[in-house]
Amino acid sequence: MRISELSRVTGVPVATVKYYLREGLVPPGRATGATQAQYDDSHVLRLRLARALVQVGGLSVAAARDVLTSLDGAGDSLHRVLGAAHSALPPRIEEDREPTRARSLASSWGWQVHPEAPALRQLEHALRALDDVGASANDERLAQYAEAAHRVAEVDVAGVPTTSPEEAATAVVIGTVLWEPVLLALRRLAQEAVSAESLGRP
Amino acid sequence: MRISELSRVTGVPVATVKYYLREGLVPPGRATGATQAQYDDSHVLRLRLARALVQVGGLSVAAARDVLTSLDGAGDSLHRVLGAAHSALPPRIEEDREPTRARSLASSWGWQVHPEAPALRQLEHALRALDDVGASANDERLAQYAEAAHRVAEVDVAGVPTTSPEEAATAVVIGTVLWEPVLLALRRLAQEAVSAESLGRP
Repeated sequence: MRISELSRVTGVPVATVKYYLREGLVPPGRATGATQAQYDDSHVLRLRLARALVQVGGLSVAAARDVLTSLDGAGDSLHRVLGAAHSALPPRIEEDREPTRARSLASSWGWQVHPEAPALRQLEHALRALDDVGASANDERLAQYAEAAHRVAEVDVAGVPTTSPEEAATAVVIGTVLWEPVLLALRRLAQEAVSAESLGRP
Repeated sequence: MRISELSRVTGVPVATVKYYLREGLVPPGRATGATQAQYDDSHVLRLRLARALVQVGGLSVAAARDVLTSLDGAGDSLHRVLGAAHSALPPRIEEDREPTRARSLASSWGWQVHPEAPALRQLEHALRALDDVGASANDERLAQYAEAAHRVAEVDVAGVPTTSPEEAATAVVIGTVLWEPVLLALRRLAQEAVSAESLGRP
């Protein structure tokens, strides 16, 4: 397909497609003339992923290029794709201290996670914020949260397509970044529903 | 207690306490001299809540004062406190369109929520973002997420103290804002754990 068709199929404006091509987020097409090139389905997938990273993940173009490069190196292991995506996606936690409590919690739940997984620092940071306002998280509530998070994660991982590493990566990026607000909105709605159930409307 | 003691108990610096007093986030103490006043436990609670709103919720001092005022008007109904806190806390969704799908989903799960609940717009907005990247949420995955969110919400609501409206409000604000990053971090950790379980480490 021509660049106009690539733009139409993905909904990404031609100017943005050209920008991503120039910046190396999307590999060049097969040249069919001095100013023309042909693109295929692999470009469609890569373009969707690049857009998801930049517009949804909020990554800079340079950061998105790094992610795409690391995904290319991840081969077809979904586990590695997930790791590369998690490492690249926000939030970036500025946390020097070791995620000691997070590691010990994960291990107490039997979760097999890499000791340097970025989500461990993310969890440690969130737990410290609770400590700071004098509302430290207790292990029981954390275990209940962990159980719910595990159910959600089962749905997430089961939903990742295994057709190609690129489709898997796109699904992981979208699932991580775009399903987070869904989960948070659902939690608040559920809080209202539970509070209505248990306390009744005034 | 004197202002220095109030500062020590809450961990809020004296300069910040004075600022919050001036801005009306914390009610004045009982005057015991031209420049001295006495504070009690109600000031400790209110100060913790004000700090949670500003430092944790990211609200401006003016917005925090609005929340505190609406909480004062909420009386001792936990359901109203929850509503007031949800309306005031981020994210503020700029979304003019009616949250039609979110309402119909909530109703299909038997959730009793106010048709103008801010979380409905939050959900609708998140669903539209998925539509925009061509990865629309299907009802089955949403139902699975909703079930997990409901479990978390049960834990949340059960954990809100009923001792005083102010303590309840503080717990709701902290629970909403500070437990969200915990849940998101746990989801990412669980994704890694599930992916390790189901696919094995390479």
